[in-house]
Amino acid sequence: MSCVLIACPLAYPYEKRAVVGHLQHPVVRPGLCICEHSLPPALEKSSGNLGRREAVEQLDSRVKTRIKASGLKLRFCTNETQATREKFVKKLQGLGFDISVAEVTAPAPAACRLLKERGLRPHLLVHDDLIPEFAEIDKTNPNCVVVGDAAENFSYANVNEAFRVLIGLEKPVLISLGRGRYYKETDGLKLDVGAYMKALEYACDVEAEVVGKPAKAFFESALAEMGVPPQQAIMIGDDIVNDVGGAQQCGMRAVQVRTGKYRPCDENHPQVKPDAYVNNLAEAVDVILGQL
Amino acid sequence: MSCVLIACPLAYPYEKRAVVGHLQHPVVRPGLCICEHSLPPALEKSSGNLGRREAVEQLDSRVKTRIKASGLKLRFCTNETQATREKFVKKLQGLGFDISVAEVTAPAPAACRLLKERGLRPHLLVHDDLIPEFAEIDKTNPNCVVVGDAAENFSYANVNEAFRVLIGLEKPVLISLGRGRYYKETDGLKLDVGAYMKALEYACDVEAEVVGKPAKAFFESALAEMGVPPQQAIMIGDDIVNDVGGAQQCGMRAVQVRTGKYRPCDENHPQVKPDAYVNNLAEAVDVILGQL
Repeated sequence: MSCVLIACPLAYPYEKRAVVGHLQHPVVRPGLCICEHSLPPALEKSSGNLGRREAVEQLDSRVKTRIKASGLKLRFCTNETQATREKFVKKLQGLGFDISVAEVTAPAPAACRLLKERGLRPHLLVHDDLIPEFAEIDKTNPNCVVVGDAAENFSYANVNEAFRVLIGLEKPVLISLGRGRYYKETDGLKLDVGAYMKALEYACDVEAEVVGKPAKAFFESALAEMGVPPQQAIMIGDDIVNDVGGAQQCGMRAVQVRTGKYRPCDENHPQVKPDAYVNNLAEAVDVILGQL
Repeated sequence: MSCVLIACPLAYPYEKRAVVGHLQHPVVRPGLCICEHSLPPALEKSSGNLGRREAVEQLDSRVKTRIKASGLKLRFCTNETQATREKFVKKLQGLGFDISVAEVTAPAPAACRLLKERGLRPHLLVHDDLIPEFAEIDKTNPNCVVVGDAAENFSYANVNEAFRVLIGLEKPVLISLGRGRYYKETDGLKLDVGAYMKALEYACDVEAEVVGKPAKAFFESALAEMGVPPQQAIMIGDDIVNDVGGAQQCGMRAVQVRTGKYRPCDENHPQVKPDAYVNNLAEAVDVILGQL
Protein backbone atom coordinates (compact mmCIF):
# COMPACT_ATOMS: atom_id res chain seq x y z
CA MET A 1 0.00 0.00 0.00
CA SER A 2 1.38 3.37 -0.93
CA CYS A 3 1.06 6.47 1.08
CA VAL A 4 1.81 10.13 1.10
CA LEU A 5 3.74 11.88 3.83
CA ILE A 6 2.77 15.50 3.93
CA ALA A 7 5.09 18.01 5.48
CA CYS A 8 4.04 21.61 5.88
CA PRO A 9 3.03 22.64 2.36
CA LEU A 10 1.43 26.08 2.61
CA ALA A 11 -1.15 26.70 -0.08
CA TYR A 12 -1.36 29.75 -2.32
CA PRO A 13 -4.56 30.82 -4.15
CA TYR A 14 -5.49 28.67 -7.11
CA GLU A 15 -4.88 31.37 -9.71
CA LYS A 16 -1.25 30.34 -9.62
CA ARG A 17 -2.00 26.77 -10.63
CA ALA A 18 -1.31 27.37 -14.32
CA VAL A 19 2.15 25.89 -13.86
CA VAL A 20 1.53 22.38 -12.65
CA GLY A 21 4.42 20.00 -12.25
CA HIS A 22 4.30 16.35 -13.23
CA LEU A 23 5.65 13.33 -11.49
CA GLN A 24 8.60 12.23 -13.55
CA HIS A 25 8.13 8.63 -12.47
CA PRO A 26 4.48 7.56 -12.25
CA VAL A 27 3.32 5.85 -9.09
CA VAL A 28 3.80 2.17 -9.85
CA ARG A 29 1.64 0.87 -7.06
CA PRO A 30 -1.41 3.03 -6.78
CA GLY A 31 -3.17 3.28 -3.49
CA LEU A 32 -3.02 6.65 -1.87
CA CYS A 33 -4.38 8.42 1.15
CA ILE A 34 -3.99 12.11 1.61
CA CYS A 35 -5.48 13.65 4.66
CA GLU A 36 -7.56 16.75 4.08
CA HIS A 37 -5.10 18.61 6.24
CA SER A 38 -1.45 19.48 6.25
CA LEU A 39 0.84 20.38 9.11
CA PRO A 40 2.33 23.75 8.36
CA PRO A 41 4.70 24.69 11.20
CA ALA A 42 4.72 28.28 9.97
CA LEU A 43 0.99 28.42 10.62
CA GLU A 44 1.35 26.61 13.88
CA LYS A 45 4.03 28.95 15.15
CA SER A 46 2.35 32.06 13.86
CA SER A 47 -0.96 33.26 15.06
CA GLY A 48 -3.52 35.72 13.84
CA ASN A 49 -5.47 36.31 10.66
CA LEU A 50 -2.85 35.49 8.07
CA GLY A 51 -2.26 31.95 9.29
CA ARG A 52 -5.95 31.24 9.63
CA ARG A 53 -6.79 32.59 6.18
CA GLU A 54 -4.09 30.51 4.55
CA ALA A 55 -5.28 27.46 6.40
CA VAL A 56 -8.76 27.91 5.06
CA GLU A 57 -7.49 28.28 1.51
CA GLN A 58 -5.56 25.10 2.04
CA LEU A 59 -8.70 23.23 2.92
CA ASP A 60 -10.26 23.78 -0.45
CA SER A 61 -13.28 21.50 -0.72
CA ARG A 62 -12.10 19.81 -3.91
CA VAL A 63 -9.05 18.58 -2.06
CA LYS A 64 -11.17 17.36 0.83
CA THR A 65 -13.45 15.41 -1.45
CA ARG A 66 -10.64 13.75 -3.32
CA ILE A 67 -8.84 12.82 -0.12
CA LYS A 68 -11.90 11.25 1.40
CA ALA A 69 -12.32 9.10 -1.67
CA SER A 70 -8.94 7.46 -1.10
CA GLY A 71 -8.14 5.00 1.65
CA LEU A 72 -4.38 4.92 1.88
CA LYS A 73 -2.14 5.29 4.86
CA LEU A 74 -0.98 8.71 5.86
CA ARG A 75 1.49 10.33 8.17
CA PHE A 76 2.08 13.98 8.97
CA CYS A 77 5.79 14.66 9.34
CA THR A 78 6.79 17.67 11.40
CA ASN A 79 9.93 18.94 13.08
CA GLU A 80 7.80 20.77 15.62
CA THR A 81 9.42 20.52 19.05
CA GLN A 82 7.75 23.35 20.93
CA ALA A 83 4.75 21.31 21.99
CA THR A 84 3.60 17.75 22.61
CA ARG A 85 1.80 16.08 19.71
CA GLU A 86 -1.40 16.42 21.76
CA LYS A 87 -1.10 20.21 22.03
CA PHE A 88 0.05 20.45 18.45
CA VAL A 89 -2.91 18.49 17.11
CA LYS A 90 -5.32 20.46 19.29
CA LYS A 91 -4.10 23.74 17.88
CA LEU A 92 -4.40 22.47 14.33
CA GLN A 93 -7.88 21.15 15.06
CA GLY A 94 -8.69 24.66 16.22
CA LEU A 95 -7.60 25.89 12.79
CA GLY A 96 -10.03 23.44 11.14
CA PHE A 97 -7.68 20.54 10.46
CA ASP A 98 -9.10 17.04 10.96
CA ILE A 99 -6.09 15.28 12.40
CA SER A 100 -5.29 12.83 15.19
CA VAL A 101 -2.20 12.33 17.34
CA ALA A 102 -1.70 8.84 15.92
CA GLU A 103 -1.09 10.32 12.46
CA VAL A 104 1.80 12.55 13.50
CA THR A 105 5.49 11.66 13.18
CA ALA A 106 7.54 14.11 15.22
CA PRO A 107 11.11 14.22 16.58
CA ALA A 108 10.36 13.78 20.30
CA PRO A 109 8.71 10.32 20.04
CA ALA A 110 11.51 9.27 17.67
CA ALA A 111 14.03 10.42 20.27
CA CYS A 112 12.20 8.48 22.99
CA ARG A 113 12.43 5.28 20.96
CA LEU A 114 16.16 5.86 20.46
CA LEU A 115 16.70 6.58 24.17
CA LYS A 116 14.91 3.38 25.18
CA GLU A 117 16.72 1.24 22.64
CA ARG A 118 20.13 2.41 23.83
CA GLY A 119 19.42 2.72 27.55
CA LEU A 120 20.06 6.47 27.51
CA ARG A 121 18.88 8.78 30.28
CA PRO A 122 18.55 12.32 28.94
CA HIS A 123 19.19 15.74 30.36
CA LEU A 124 16.51 17.75 28.53
CA LEU A 125 17.16 21.17 27.00
CA VAL A 126 13.72 21.59 25.43
CA HIS A 127 10.62 23.74 25.47
CA ASP A 128 8.52 23.34 28.65
CA ASP A 129 5.57 22.23 26.55
CA LEU A 130 7.54 19.31 25.11
CA ILE A 131 8.54 17.80 28.45
CA PRO A 132 5.44 15.56 28.79
CA GLU A 133 6.57 13.65 25.65
CA PHE A 134 9.46 12.35 27.80
CA ALA A 135 7.25 11.43 30.78
CA GLU A 136 8.05 7.71 30.58
CA ILE A 137 11.78 8.18 30.14
CA ASP A 138 14.18 7.75 33.05
CA LYS A 139 15.96 11.07 33.47
CA THR A 140 17.96 10.34 36.62
CA ASN A 141 21.76 10.49 36.48
CA PRO A 142 21.80 11.61 32.81
CA ASN A 143 24.16 9.99 30.30
CA CYS A 144 23.18 12.12 27.29
CA VAL A 145 21.69 15.50 26.36
CA VAL A 146 18.58 16.03 24.22
CA VAL A 147 18.23 19.49 22.68
CA GLY A 148 15.05 20.76 21.03
CA ASP A 149 13.70 24.15 20.03
CA ALA A 150 13.71 25.46 23.60
CA ALA A 151 13.13 29.11 22.58
CA GLU A 152 13.14 31.28 25.73
CA ASN A 153 14.47 28.27 27.66
CA PHE A 154 17.78 28.79 25.84
CA SER A 155 19.01 30.98 28.70
CA TYR A 156 22.75 31.05 29.38
CA ALA A 157 22.19 29.14 32.62
CA ASN A 158 20.18 26.39 30.88
CA VAL A 159 22.53 26.02 27.91
CA ASN A 160 25.50 25.99 30.27
CA GLU A 161 23.89 23.31 32.42
CA ALA A 162 23.38 21.09 29.36
CA PHE A 163 27.00 21.77 28.35
CA ARG A 164 28.28 20.73 31.78
CA VAL A 165 26.34 17.47 31.66
CA LEU A 166 27.69 16.74 28.18
CA ILE A 167 31.34 17.65 28.84
CA GLY A 168 31.24 15.61 32.05
CA LEU A 169 30.34 12.38 30.23
CA GLU A 170 33.04 9.88 29.35
CA LYS A 171 31.41 9.44 25.93
CA PRO A 172 29.31 12.55 25.30
CA VAL A 173 26.06 11.81 23.42
CA LEU A 174 24.09 14.76 22.03
CA ILE A 175 20.70 14.12 20.45
CA SER A 176 19.15 17.01 18.52
CA LEU A 177 15.47 17.23 17.60
CA GLY A 178 16.23 18.79 14.22
CA ARG A 179 18.94 20.94 12.68
CA GLY A 180 16.89 23.99 11.59
CA ARG A 181 18.73 27.31 11.51
CA TYR A 182 15.75 29.58 12.14
CA TYR A 183 12.02 29.96 11.55
CA LYS A 184 9.58 32.79 11.15
CA GLU A 185 7.05 33.91 13.71
CA THR A 186 4.62 36.80 13.46
CA ASP A 187 7.09 39.05 15.31
CA GLY A 188 10.10 38.08 13.19
CA LEU A 189 12.78 35.43 12.72
CA LYS A 190 13.71 33.12 15.58
CA LEU A 191 16.83 31.04 16.12
CA ASP A 192 16.01 27.34 15.86
CA VAL A 193 17.48 24.29 17.55
CA GLY A 194 20.28 23.88 14.98
CA ALA A 195 22.12 26.97 16.22
CA TYR A 196 22.24 25.67 19.79
CA MET A 197 23.10 22.17 18.57
CA LYS A 198 26.15 23.72 16.86
CA ALA A 199 27.12 25.62 20.01
CA LEU A 200 27.11 22.40 22.07
CA GLU A 201 28.85 20.42 19.32
CA TYR A 202 31.67 22.96 19.23
CA ALA A 203 32.01 23.34 23.00
CA CYS A 204 32.21 19.58 23.57
CA ASP A 205 33.84 18.54 20.28
CA VAL A 206 31.04 16.07 19.49
CA GLU A 207 28.69 15.50 16.57
CA ALA A 208 25.00 15.50 17.37
CA GLU A 209 22.67 12.70 16.33
CA VAL A 210 19.73 14.39 14.62
CA VAL A 211 16.39 12.65 14.96
CA GLY A 212 14.16 15.13 13.08
CA LYS A 213 13.99 15.69 9.34
CA PRO A 214 16.12 15.26 7.21
CA ALA A 215 17.53 12.32 9.21
CA LYS A 216 16.99 8.95 7.55
CA ALA A 217 15.86 7.45 10.88
CA PHE A 218 13.02 9.97 11.04
CA PHE A 219 11.54 8.90 7.70
CA GLU A 220 12.14 5.25 8.54
CA SER A 221 10.07 5.79 11.69
CA ALA A 222 7.22 7.26 9.65
CA LEU A 223 7.35 4.35 7.20
CA ALA A 224 7.48 1.80 10.02
CA GLU A 225 4.47 3.40 11.68
CA MET A 226 2.54 2.90 8.44
CA GLY A 227 4.03 -0.47 7.56
CA VAL A 228 4.92 0.77 4.08
CA PRO A 229 8.22 0.29 2.20
CA PRO A 230 9.94 3.47 0.96
CA GLN A 231 9.42 2.56 -2.71
CA GLN A 232 5.66 2.84 -2.18
CA ALA A 233 5.69 6.14 -0.34
CA ILE A 234 5.68 9.72 -1.55
CA MET A 235 6.67 12.74 0.47
CA ILE A 236 5.03 16.11 -0.19
CA GLY A 237 6.89 19.03 1.33
CA ASP A 238 8.02 22.60 0.85
CA ASP A 239 11.59 22.25 2.18
CA ILE A 240 14.01 21.13 -0.53
CA VAL A 241 16.57 19.71 1.91
CA ASN A 242 14.63 18.60 4.97
CA ASP A 243 11.52 17.24 3.20
CA VAL A 244 12.53 16.36 -0.35
CA GLY A 245 16.19 15.49 0.17
CA GLY A 246 15.57 13.62 3.42
CA ALA A 247 12.78 11.47 1.95
CA GLN A 248 14.72 10.66 -1.21
CA GLN A 249 17.76 9.59 0.79
CA CYS A 250 15.44 7.14 2.48
CA GLY A 251 14.42 5.65 -0.88
CA MET A 252 11.10 7.50 -1.21
CA ARG A 253 9.93 9.76 -3.99
CA ALA A 254 9.28 13.38 -3.10
CA VAL A 255 7.20 16.23 -4.49
CA GLN A 256 8.04 19.85 -3.70
CA VAL A 257 5.22 22.36 -3.37
CA ARG A 258 5.97 25.88 -4.60
CA THR A 259 4.67 27.40 -1.35
CA GLY A 260 5.92 28.06 2.16
CA LYS A 261 9.71 27.85 2.40
CA TYR A 262 10.00 27.19 -1.36
CA ARG A 263 12.25 29.61 -3.23
CA PRO A 264 12.75 29.64 -7.05
CA CYS A 265 16.46 28.95 -6.51
CA ASP A 266 15.48 25.58 -4.99
CA GLU A 267 14.96 24.37 -8.57
CA ASN A 268 18.69 24.74 -9.16
CA HIS A 269 19.68 23.01 -5.93
CA PRO A 270 23.07 21.34 -6.49
CA GLN A 271 22.21 18.13 -4.62
CA VAL A 272 18.44 17.66 -4.49
CA LYS A 273 16.02 17.23 -7.41
CA PRO A 274 12.36 16.57 -6.51
CA ASP A 275 10.47 13.92 -8.48
CA ALA A 276 7.91 16.62 -9.27
CA TYR A 277 7.00 20.22 -8.56
CA VAL A 278 3.46 21.36 -7.82
CA ASN A 279 2.06 24.73 -6.94
CA ASN A 280 0.42 23.64 -3.71
CA LEU A 281 -0.97 20.73 -1.75
CA ALA A 282 -4.20 20.63 -3.76
CA GLU A 283 -2.24 20.17 -6.96
CA ALA A 284 -0.08 17.52 -5.36
CA VAL A 285 -3.27 15.60 -4.63
CA ASP A 286 -4.51 16.12 -8.18
CA VAL A 287 -1.27 14.93 -9.75
CA ILE A 288 -0.81 11.92 -7.52
CA LEU A 289 -4.40 10.71 -7.57
CA GLY A 290 -4.43 11.24 -11.34
CA GLN A 291 -1.76 8.59 -11.68
CA LEU A 292 -3.42 5.93 -9.55
CA MET B 1 64.74 44.79 20.93
CA SER B 2 63.26 41.52 21.94
CA CYS B 3 60.42 41.04 24.30
CA VAL B 4 58.31 38.46 25.97
CA LEU B 5 54.58 38.28 25.70
CA ILE B 6 53.20 36.56 28.72
CA ALA B 7 49.83 34.93 28.53
CA CYS B 8 48.30 33.38 31.61
CA PRO B 9 51.03 31.04 32.84
CA LEU B 10 49.90 29.85 36.26
CA ALA B 11 52.78 28.99 38.54
CA TYR B 12 53.16 25.78 40.50
CA PRO B 13 55.45 25.39 43.52
CA TYR B 14 59.14 25.20 42.71
CA GLU B 15 59.57 21.61 43.85
CA LYS B 16 58.39 20.66 40.39
CA ARG B 17 61.17 22.52 38.63
CA ALA B 18 63.39 19.44 38.31
CA VAL B 19 62.22 19.07 34.72
CA VAL B 20 63.24 22.30 33.07
CA GLY B 21 62.76 22.73 29.36
CA HIS B 22 65.28 24.43 27.12
CA LEU B 23 64.79 26.81 24.25
CA GLN B 24 65.58 24.80 21.14
CA HIS B 25 66.78 27.94 19.38
CA PRO B 26 68.69 30.39 21.60
CA VAL B 27 67.60 33.99 21.61
CA VAL B 28 69.76 35.57 18.91
CA ARG B 29 69.19 39.15 19.95
CA PRO B 30 69.26 39.33 23.69
CA GLY B 31 67.30 41.99 25.44
CA LEU B 32 64.40 40.82 27.46
CA CYS B 33 61.82 42.19 29.80
CA ILE B 34 59.51 39.99 31.77
CA CYS B 35 57.05 41.65 34.02
CA GLU B 36 56.89 40.35 37.54
CA HIS B 37 53.27 39.51 36.90
CA SER B 38 51.30 37.32 34.61
CA LEU B 39 47.69 37.59 33.52
CA PRO B 40 46.01 34.37 34.51
CA PRO B 41 42.36 34.60 33.43
CA ALA B 42 41.58 31.63 35.63
CA LEU B 43 42.65 33.71 38.62
CA GLU B 44 40.92 36.76 37.31
CA LYS B 45 37.67 34.92 36.78
CA SER B 46 37.88 32.99 40.01
CA SER B 47 37.80 34.60 43.37
CA GLY B 48 38.65 33.50 46.86
CA ASN B 49 41.64 32.01 48.61
CA LEU B 50 42.81 29.57 46.00
CA GLY B 51 43.35 32.23 43.34
CA ARG B 52 45.09 34.56 45.75
CA ARG B 53 47.42 31.87 47.05
CA GLU B 54 48.49 30.83 43.57
CA ALA B 55 49.11 34.45 42.67
CA VAL B 56 51.42 34.88 45.61
CA GLU B 57 53.40 31.78 44.66
CA GLN B 58 53.70 33.23 41.19
CA LEU B 59 55.28 36.36 42.54
CA ASP B 60 58.29 34.54 43.89
CA SER B 61 60.89 37.13 44.83
CA ARG B 62 63.64 35.63 42.68
CA VAL B 63 61.49 36.18 39.61
CA LYS B 64 60.77 39.75 40.64
CA THR B 65 64.43 40.51 41.08
CA ARG B 66 65.46 39.09 37.75
CA ILE B 67 62.64 40.86 35.92
CA LYS B 68 63.51 44.21 37.43
CA ALA B 69 67.07 43.80 36.23
CA SER B 70 65.91 43.67 32.62
CA GLY B 71 64.60 46.61 30.62
CA LEU B 72 62.85 45.11 27.65
CA LYS B 73 59.40 45.75 26.27
CA LEU B 74 56.52 43.71 27.52
CA ARG B 75 52.90 43.06 26.68
CA PHE B 76 50.32 41.04 28.52
CA CYS B 77 48.13 39.18 26.03
CA THR B 78 44.70 38.17 27.21
CA ASN B 79 41.46 37.01 25.63
CA GLU B 80 39.55 38.49 28.56
CA THR B 81 36.33 40.07 27.30
CA GLN B 82 34.26 40.24 30.45
CA ALA B 83 35.70 43.56 31.59
CA THR B 84 37.41 46.70 30.31
CA ARG B 85 41.20 46.71 30.54
CA GLU B 86 40.86 49.26 33.35
CA LYS B 87 38.72 46.94 35.50
CA PHE B 88 40.85 43.97 34.58
CA VAL B 89 44.08 45.70 35.59
CA LYS B 90 42.54 46.98 38.81
CA LYS B 91 41.54 43.49 39.87
CA LEU B 92 45.00 42.14 39.10
CA GLN B 93 46.58 45.01 41.04
CA GLY B 94 44.37 43.96 43.93
CA LEU B 95 45.96 40.51 43.68
CA GLY B 96 49.42 42.06 43.97
CA PHE B 97 50.30 42.37 40.27
CA ASP B 98 52.23 45.49 39.19
CA ILE B 99 50.63 46.12 35.83
CA SER B 100 49.28 49.06 33.85
CA VAL B 101 46.52 49.34 31.22
CA ALA B 102 49.09 50.39 28.60
CA GLU B 103 50.76 46.98 28.87
CA VAL B 104 47.64 44.95 28.04
CA THR B 105 46.72 43.64 24.59
CA ALA B 106 43.10 42.48 24.58
CA PRO B 107 40.47 41.66 21.91
CA ALA B 108 38.12 44.62 22.42
CA PRO B 109 40.62 47.38 21.51
CA ALA B 110 41.75 45.26 18.56
CA ALA B 111 38.10 45.02 17.45
CA CYS B 112 37.68 48.78 17.80
CA ARG B 113 40.65 49.39 15.51
CA LEU B 114 39.17 47.01 12.95
CA LEU B 115 35.73 48.64 13.17
CA LYS B 116 37.19 52.10 12.63
CA GLU B 117 39.39 51.01 9.72
CA ARG B 118 36.45 49.46 7.88
CA GLY B 119 33.73 51.95 8.81
CA LEU B 120 31.74 49.26 10.66
CA ARG B 121 29.02 50.12 13.17
CA PRO B 122 28.55 47.20 15.56
CA HIS B 123 25.58 45.66 17.28
CA LEU B 124 27.21 44.48 20.53
CA LEU B 125 26.53 41.08 22.07
CA VAL B 126 29.03 41.42 24.92
CA HIS B 127 29.32 41.54 28.69
CA ASP B 128 27.94 44.74 30.24
CA ASP B 129 31.34 45.47 31.76
CA LEU B 130 32.99 45.49 28.31
CA ILE B 131 30.69 48.08 26.75
CA PRO B 132 32.79 51.11 27.81
CA GLU B 133 35.62 49.81 25.55
CA PHE B 134 33.33 50.66 22.61
CA ALA B 135 32.41 54.13 23.90
CA GLU B 136 33.94 55.94 20.94
CA ILE B 137 32.47 53.65 18.31
CA ASP B 138 29.36 54.66 16.32
CA LYS B 139 26.75 52.03 17.04
CA THR B 140 23.78 53.56 15.19
CA ASN B 141 22.21 51.61 12.32
CA PRO B 142 24.50 48.58 12.80
CA ASN B 143 26.18 46.93 9.82
CA CYS B 144 27.94 44.16 11.74
CA VAL B 145 27.72 42.15 14.97
CA VAL B 146 30.48 41.91 17.60
CA VAL B 147 30.21 38.94 19.95
CA GLY B 148 32.25 38.58 23.15
CA ASP B 149 32.03 36.43 26.25
CA ALA B 150 28.65 37.84 27.25
CA ALA B 151 27.99 35.18 29.94
CA GLU B 152 24.54 35.81 31.46
CA ASN B 153 23.86 38.30 28.64
CA PHE B 154 23.62 35.29 26.30
CA SER B 155 19.86 35.13 26.87
CA TYR B 156 17.71 33.78 24.03
CA ALA B 157 16.33 37.29 23.44
CA ASN B 158 19.80 38.84 23.20
CA VAL B 159 21.28 36.12 20.98
CA ASN B 160 18.18 36.25 18.77
CA GLU B 161 18.46 40.03 18.47
CA ALA B 162 22.08 39.73 17.30
CA PHE B 163 20.99 37.00 14.87
CA ARG B 164 18.26 39.23 13.41
CA VAL B 165 20.71 42.09 12.86
CA LEU B 166 23.17 39.73 11.17
CA ILE B 167 20.67 37.89 8.95
CA GLY B 168 19.18 41.24 7.91
CA LEU B 169 22.47 42.54 6.48
CA GLU B 170 23.16 42.31 2.77
CA LYS B 171 26.71 41.19 3.58
CA PRO B 172 26.66 39.81 7.13
CA VAL B 173 29.85 40.59 9.10
CA LEU B 174 30.40 38.77 12.39
CA ILE B 175 33.38 39.74 14.56
CA SER B 176 34.19 37.45 17.47
CA LEU B 177 36.38 38.44 20.42
CA GLY B 178 37.94 34.98 20.63
CA ARG B 179 36.99 31.41 19.78
CA GLY B 180 37.30 29.77 23.21
CA ARG B 181 35.03 26.79 23.87
CA TYR B 182 34.78 27.13 27.64
CA TYR B 183 36.65 28.25 30.72
CA LYS B 184 36.73 27.34 34.38
CA GLU B 185 35.31 29.41 37.19
CA THR B 186 35.20 28.57 40.85
CA ASP B 187 31.68 27.17 40.47
CA GLY B 188 32.47 25.06 37.41
CA LEU B 189 32.90 25.20 33.64
CA LYS B 190 31.35 28.03 31.63
CA LEU B 191 30.55 28.22 27.92
CA ASP B 192 32.81 30.75 26.23
CA VAL B 193 32.28 33.06 23.25
CA GLY B 194 33.27 30.40 20.69
CA ALA B 195 30.09 28.39 21.26
CA TYR B 196 27.87 31.38 20.54
CA MET B 197 30.07 32.42 17.63
CA LYS B 198 29.39 28.97 16.13
CA ALA B 199 25.64 29.31 16.73
CA LEU B 200 25.53 32.62 14.84
CA GLU B 201 27.84 31.33 12.10
CA TYR B 202 25.53 28.38 11.49
CA ALA B 203 22.28 30.34 11.66
CA CYS B 204 23.49 32.97 9.17
CA ASP B 205 25.84 30.81 7.08
CA VAL B 206 28.79 33.15 7.69
CA GLU B 207 32.32 32.76 9.00
CA ALA B 208 33.28 34.96 11.93
CA GLU B 209 36.39 37.13 11.92
CA VAL B 210 38.19 36.34 15.18
CA VAL B 211 40.19 39.17 16.71
CA GLY B 212 41.44 37.48 19.91
CA LYS B 213 44.14 34.83 20.23
CA PRO B 214 45.10 32.77 18.20
CA ALA B 215 44.36 35.23 15.37
CA LYS B 216 47.48 36.50 13.61
CA ALA B 217 46.11 40.07 13.74
CA PHE B 218 46.00 39.89 17.53
CA PHE B 219 49.71 39.09 17.87
CA GLU B 220 50.56 41.63 15.19
CA SER B 221 48.77 44.25 17.29
CA ALA B 222 50.83 43.33 20.34
CA LEU B 223 54.05 43.52 18.33
CA ALA B 224 53.06 46.85 16.77
CA GLU B 225 52.26 48.27 20.20
CA MET B 226 55.82 47.40 21.26
CA GLY B 227 57.50 48.25 17.97
CA VAL B 228 59.19 44.85 17.89
CA PRO B 229 59.46 42.45 14.90
CA PRO B 230 58.17 38.91 15.46
CA GLN B 231 61.64 37.36 15.13
CA GLN B 232 62.70 39.21 18.26
CA ALA B 233 59.71 38.34 20.39
CA ILE B 234 58.94 35.35 22.55
CA MET B 235 55.52 34.30 23.74
CA ILE B 236 55.13 32.53 27.06
CA GLY B 237 51.78 30.85 27.48
CA ASP B 238 49.95 27.82 28.79
CA ASP B 239 47.59 27.26 25.86
CA ILE B 240 49.16 25.12 23.14
CA VAL B 241 46.86 26.39 20.37
CA ASN B 242 45.88 29.94 21.35
CA ASP B 243 49.19 31.06 22.84
CA VAL B 244 51.92 28.89 21.33
CA GLY B 245 50.37 28.11 17.95
CA GLY B 246 49.04 31.61 17.43
CA ALA B 247 52.36 33.30 18.22
CA GLN B 248 54.36 30.89 16.06
CA GLN B 249 52.05 31.46 13.10
CA CYS B 250 52.92 35.12 13.47
CA GLY B 251 56.65 34.35 13.21
CA MET B 252 57.41 34.50 16.93
CA ARG B 253 58.97 31.84 19.10
CA ALA B 254 56.84 30.45 21.91
CA VAL B 255 57.44 28.73 25.23
CA GLN B 256 54.76 26.60 26.86
CA VAL B 257 54.52 26.53 30.65
CA ARG B 258 53.47 23.21 32.18
CA THR B 259 50.81 24.92 34.30
CA GLY B 260 47.27 26.23 33.89
CA LYS B 261 45.58 24.78 30.82
CA TYR B 262 48.65 22.66 29.99
CA ARG B 263 47.97 18.94 29.63
CA PRO B 264 50.65 16.25 29.07
CA CYS B 265 48.98 15.34 25.77
CA ASP B 266 49.84 18.84 24.51
CA GLU B 267 53.38 17.55 23.99
CA ASN B 268 52.06 15.24 21.27
CA HIS B 269 49.96 17.93 19.60
CA PRO B 270 49.74 17.08 15.88
CA GLN B 271 50.21 20.66 14.64
CA VAL B 272 51.94 22.75 17.31
CA LYS B 273 55.42 22.25 18.80
CA PRO B 274 56.62 24.90 21.29
CA ASP B 275 60.20 26.14 21.04
CA ALA B 276 60.62 25.12 24.68
CA TYR B 277 58.75 23.75 27.67
CA VAL B 278 59.17 25.12 31.18
CA ASN B 279 57.47 24.20 34.41
CA ASN B 280 56.21 27.68 35.17
CA LEU B 281 56.69 31.39 34.58
CA ALA B 282 59.67 31.63 36.94
CA GLU B 283 61.50 28.96 34.96
CA ALA B 284 60.62 30.68 31.71
CA VAL B 285 62.36 33.76 33.06
CA ASP B 286 65.37 31.72 34.16
CA VAL B 287 65.72 29.99 30.79
CA ILE B 288 65.27 33.08 28.69
CA LEU B 289 67.44 35.41 30.76
CA GLY B 290 70.09 32.71 30.94
CA GLN B 291 70.47 32.92 27.17
CA LEU B 292 70.87 36.69 26.96
